[in-house]
Amino acid sequence: MKSARIIKPKEYLEIQQSETPKPKGSQVLVKVHSSGVCHSDIHLWDGGYEGLGGQILKTTDRGVKYPLTPGHEIAGTIESLGEQAEGIKKSEKVLVYPWIGEGSCPACRIGEENLCDKPRSLGVYVDGGYSEYVLVPSYKYLVKIGDDLDMNAAATLSCSALTAYGAVKNANLKPDNNVVIVGAGGLGLMAMQLAKAVTGARIIAMDLDDNKLKTAKQDGGVDDVVNSKNEDPVKAVMELTNNLGADAVIDFVNASKTVEADMQFLRRRAKVVLVGLFGGELKLSLVSMPTRAYRLIGSYTGTLNDLTELVSLAKREIIKPLVSNRFKLDQATDALTMLKEGKILGRGVINPIQ
Amino acid sequence: MKSARIIKPKEYLEIQQSETPKPKGSQVLVKVHSSGVCHSDIHLWDGGYEGLGGQILKTTDRGVKYPLTPGHEIAGTIESLGEQAEGIKKSEKVLVYPWIGEGSCPACRIGEENLCDKPRSLGVYVDGGYSEYVLVPSYKYLVKIGDDLDMNAAATLSCSALTAYGAVKNANLKPDNNVVIVGAGGLGLMAMQLAKAVTGARIIAMDLDDNKLKTAKQDGGVDDVVNSKNEDPVKAVMELTNNLGADAVIDFVNASKTVEADMQFLRRRAKVVLVGLFGGELKLSLVSMPTRAYRLIGSYTGTLNDLTELVSLAKREIIKPLVSNRFKLDQATDALTMLKEGKILGRGVINPIQ
Amino acid sequence: MKSARIIKPKEYLEIQQSETPKPKGSQVLVKVHSSGVCHSDIHLWDGGYEGLGGQILKTTDRGVKYPLTPGHEIAGTIESLGEQAEGIKKSEKVLVYPWIGEGSCPACRIGEENLCDKPRSLGVYVDGGYSEYVLVPSYKYLVKIGDDLDMNAAATLSCSALTAYGAVKNANLKPDNNVVIVGAGGLGLMAMQLAKAVTGARIIAMDLDDNKLKTAKQDGGVDDVVNSKNEDPVKAVMELTNNLGADAVIDFVNASKTVEADMQFLRRRAKVVLVGLFGGELKLSLVSMPTRAYRLIGSYTGTLNDLTELVSLAKREIIKPLVSNRFKLDQATDALTMLKEGKILGRGVINPIQ
Amino acid sequence: MKSARIIKPKEYLEIQQSETPKPKGSQVLVKVHSSGVCHSDIHLWDGGYEGLGGQILKTTDRGVKYPLTPGHEIAGTIESLGEQAEGIKKSEKVLVYPWIGEGSCPACRIGEENLCDKPRSLGVYVDGGYSEYVLVPSYKYLVKIGDDLDMNAAATLSCSALTAYGAVKNANLKPDNNVVIVGAGGLGLMAMQLAKAVTGARIIAMDLDDNKLKTAKQDGGVDDVVNSKNEDPVKAVMELTNNLGADAVIDFVNASKTVEADMQFLRRRAKVVLVGLFGGELKLSLVSMPTRAYRLIGSYTGTLNDLTELVSLAKREIIKPLVSNRFKLDQATDALTMLKEGKILGRGVINPIQ
Repeated sequence: MKSARIIKPKEYLEIQQSETPKPKGSQVLVKVHSSGVCHSDIHLWDGGYEGLGGQILKTTDRGVKYPLTPGHEIAGTIESLGEQAEGIKKSEKVLVYPWIGEGSCPACRIGEENLCDKPRSLGVYVDGGYSEYVLVPSYKYLVKIGDDLDMNAAATLSCSALTAYGAVKNANLKPDNNVVIVGAGGLGLMAMQLAKAVTGARIIAMDLDDNKLKTAKQDGGVDDVVNSKNEDPVKAVMELTNNLGADAVIDFVNASKTVEADMQFLRRRAKVVLVGLFGGELKLSLVSMPTRAYRLIGSYTGTLNDLTELVSLAKREIIKPLVSNRFKLDQATDALTMLKEGKILGRGVINPIQ
Repeated sequence: MKSARIIKPKEYLEIQQSETPKPKGSQVLVKVHSSGVCHSDIHLWDGGYEGLGGQILKTTDRGVKYPLTPGHEIAGTIESLGEQAEGIKKSEKVLVYPWIGEGSCPACRIGEENLCDKPRSLGVYVDGGYSEYVLVPSYKYLVKIGDDLDMNAAATLSCSALTAYGAVKNANLKPDNNVVIVGAGGLGLMAMQLAKAVTGARIIAMDLDDNKLKTAKQDGGVDDVVNSKNEDPVKAVMELTNNLGADAVIDFVNASKTVEADMQFLRRRAKVVLVGLFGGELKLSLVSMPTRAYRLIGSYTGTLNDLTELVSLAKREIIKPLVSNRFKLDQATDALTMLKEGKILGRGVINPIQ
Repeated sequence: MKSARIIKPKEYLEIQQSETPKPKGSQVLVKVHSSGVCHSDIHLWDGGYEGLGGQILKTTDRGVKYPLTPGHEIAGTIESLGEQAEGIKKSEKVLVYPWIGEGSCPACRIGEENLCDKPRSLGVYVDGGYSEYVLVPSYKYLVKIGDDLDMNAAATLSCSALTAYGAVKNANLKPDNNVVIVGAGGLGLMAMQLAKAVTGARIIAMDLDDNKLKTAKQDGGVDDVVNSKNEDPVKAVMELTNNLGADAVIDFVNASKTVEADMQFLRRRAKVVLVGLFGGELKLSLVSMPTRAYRLIGSYTGTLNDLTELVSLAKREIIKPLVSNRFKLDQATDALTMLKEGKILGRGVINPIQ
Repeated sequence: MKSARIIKPKEYLEIQQSETPKPKGSQVLVKVHSSGVCHSDIHLWDGGYEGLGGQILKTTDRGVKYPLTPGHEIAGTIESLGEQAEGIKKSEKVLVYPWIGEGSCPACRIGEENLCDKPRSLGVYVDGGYSEYVLVPSYKYLVKIGDDLDMNAAATLSCSALTAYGAVKNANLKPDNNVVIVGAGGLGLMAMQLAKAVTGARIIAMDLDDNKLKTAKQDGGVDDVVNSKNEDPVKAVMELTNNLGADAVIDFVNASKTVEADMQFLRRRAKVVLVGLFGGELKLSLVSMPTRAYRLIGSYTGTLNDLTELVSLAKREIIKPLVSNRFKLDQATDALTMLKEGKILGRGVINPIQ
């Protein structure tokens, strides 16, 4: 089979030919029709994130090994099954849950494999979907999508929408809450759709880009928008909330500058859900945490169960994933480059099988 | 009536004579038998806390007005009732819930008045228990204690034990969790007792003082202790947890130094409950929040319902509040001074009526 | 002031003239613009409910005293305030939360006064809104509605919509759940709107009346309908759920016949939320409760906080209460009679002040 | 290997010799040191339960197939591993989680396999532990017990203690709750220990047998006992609760007679957790469900995560499982007979390997 692989950080991805794996035990081989291109793939390509004091957190220190086939947003069809795989048959259309754990840590035991102590996520720690085929460790990680859902749209559910959904769930929004969603890109826009669909909260979208904010109003159904380049975000939020401050913030950027602003427009008891991997540090006033009863919540992707809920919402068109760019397998480097340069609105996908 | 009042920050408290209030509507006048002396009274006396970059957060900026009668841990007997006060009668022994809200914010509506947008806490924003009598705004804030509970022990439930309990609840501990409790003073020790009594978690006590750690073992029933002056706290916790890290930390100090250490011995998904008012700032690595799925939770006192639960536990001697020092009303300055100098082990109380 | 009162069960309501009360302490006097007419008012008028074995549960045994001014869905304007009432001023438009408790039971302490041990609900245990004025025990029970909301529509939020909302919350629905809502009258229809707005679940409406089911499709946005007169409800639900059964049922009838059917189309782990006051008994197979892990949940109105959430949803037109009939105060008996005879679709209201 | 099998309901179990299975994929073969004898094994042996109107619910209608090797409380050592099994090695001591699901229903996805739509529980639907060896479908269902725990005591954790724990969790007890635990046999006693250890609630034990109630006081640490043969249970509970009624009941008998009594001593908002498989029916007054806001909760065993929590509690001796009788494999019929006749106090275990 052909795969697009990162051989070394920062170098062009290589198309490599290797033997197609044969599934054993509970394993399933999936033929990849669509594999989303995600910002975190750029971190894998770059080899790191920015941590405290500008220091780089290396992906290899987190357990990533190169060469690696990236791609964790995978939709395709069943190609073959191990002898213990069940409940599914050849050619069925499936979405792959990629946030797989080692299986016996406390997180795995309660179905939160995405938060496993020793993760084995597809496309991160194990070869993923920038490939004609992907080997999935168990039939349990497959969600049937039937014929209602477009393969490309479906693929984006397993990270882009899932991360947005996990964050919205962590914010635990109520209908009389004011929530600020920072970053109106792909994830932010999906979070707006989801918050709209399942919480009833009043949504304020914040971004630097008027076009994105316009889309947020039109497709995200948000109540209000704030362009934090043109106006003081703190002042704007305080005005929109009748000087109460926000009950919750979901920050899809999660950079020093955005979170510093977030901390200044919070109502007492507010939650700040931190999602983005932009990096940097925050100087946090410790005494304000108890006196203001704030909560800072790190949110990382979502659970298999969250993904089945998303599939249900997408099938009934309650949420609408937006796929804007399609690439061939040998355009993988182009896809990552365009994403890095901010030239992909919505979501790009690679189609190894066409 | 006589009251010990802070006329100006940092000056000796004055004993002032004023007219005893007459309760109206739902109000109740309570004769104060015991009023606990709390670290946060020192902040009221000092006039501020340390915030970001060593800057002082003034109490007056948070709405405190001087002169003020401090004292929010109040046990006493009913002296007289307003015409709409009910369910209680003259001379009954009661504990006063001091964390009173203005009544119609979202926190108040769900019984979390301690987190009200515009708090009216007794002894903080409104005159409190360093006085012969205290005026309570409604009979609803009184918890009957019957004859089982010593008045002095009872008094300490409404802040010292309540803050410990609120923090233990926020940590949401499970029987297979490892929790580190930082600070083995009065609050920490009570948190250990409570975590022991109602969670089944394995408790690691951390402090700089071997005597306090000894007490933690004997009276707090903790499983392990770490003296963070003598050994590296990070290494010690990692060893005690089989290199997994702590599932939760409850930090009753909440200073830069303690929280910096906390952040280094956390298991993925860990909660850090911040309680202490020591102050200072933390440099927080933003990207670690989502990738490690950490939660930083500010915890401030507790609810009226938490207090009734504590009274139930104390009556059945499942928890044992420790009162170590008793003072007369005119010794209020001495009491605060001794507390500030670390000379009170356990809890000091003032007895205005003897 | 004039009030329409039940002097004795089953007799015509009398218009009585009495002195307008003067609010004291935290009390507030509200001028009633609209007071909803509710099915439970019929039980008050009848003097009882049907319990086990056809036996009548008398309202007087539950603490109701006659003569009584019914009316618990009250919208109006502030007429005058007690000296401790605050945060509101004369002529402001408000909705009254009627499910008031005595204040110091465990339910009251956590803001669930609707489930108080010794309730003092307006229009049930205390004189209510079929009157020109109503005396509200505290400013805390008032929710400001501003000018966005029609008074008649607002009135119906405090019982009809609140009961529907409480039930939807108790069902704890997820986006991939199939929920059957039994009874497509006023409450059922509102529950459908609410489940649609804040849960993302797939909704199956069940009723005997094709017209109501048609409205459920059009205004309730339900996914499927079952007419249980024309088709076997068990077979129908099993077919619609791919033979899995329903994850949850919300039964607004709660009669022997409906609940017997409910129990036969449940998925393992299903919740049955019982809301209606129709009465009768269920023969429950005890062993099926643990083996099938069913939950039967009695749901009674909602909390003050739920009501503020509803007001927020109604102001933004996410839910649309339907008022179909308006009556004058002296038509109170006619209103109850029409409701009893099933001649009111949507909700009827009385307008004492016009 | 030798196994004691039910060939046909109600006949003597037969010792059969069969080929020892070879684990494949994620499977693990466990050498059985101890296998608990459970009341539900008697239902398997009898071939049914009593349902509505005295009708028998056949085990075969629930999917049980004979011949069957019973035994779902299994402790032993690792004998051999499939090639994908990991994290564990030959001879390690383990406890087996038997409540295994098919893996992709909503319950399985959140780690509640015990409530799976299509369960594959060991010793119920698949051959279990009355055998020298048992084949476990995945290494994920094994909990390491180290050398601290006795094999026989450990075995009883996976059903007896787990069912008790699941029930205590479903009751969601708070320190100021009064809980009645009905049935002071093995499960009831363990529930008392657990409620004592992790909730702080006040516990009232109810049984017909004074000896069991005495043990409940001594070993279960309960606050009060009621012998429902000698005194009216309703009157007794009302007196003990100051006429408030119980906040929760956990009924380990779950027969018509016990649940009828339960329903009469409930406080408003009370939960009734139904656990026992005695059977029979309850005539439930439907209108009392909403007006009294009762919850009837069926509770069935517990999750894998609950089991790891129990192992943690048992290792630290916070709970103490009681094993009273030990049998050889060829005494399996005797063991079941003694249990049926009420001659086993505590718990009996079979030791296939000695």
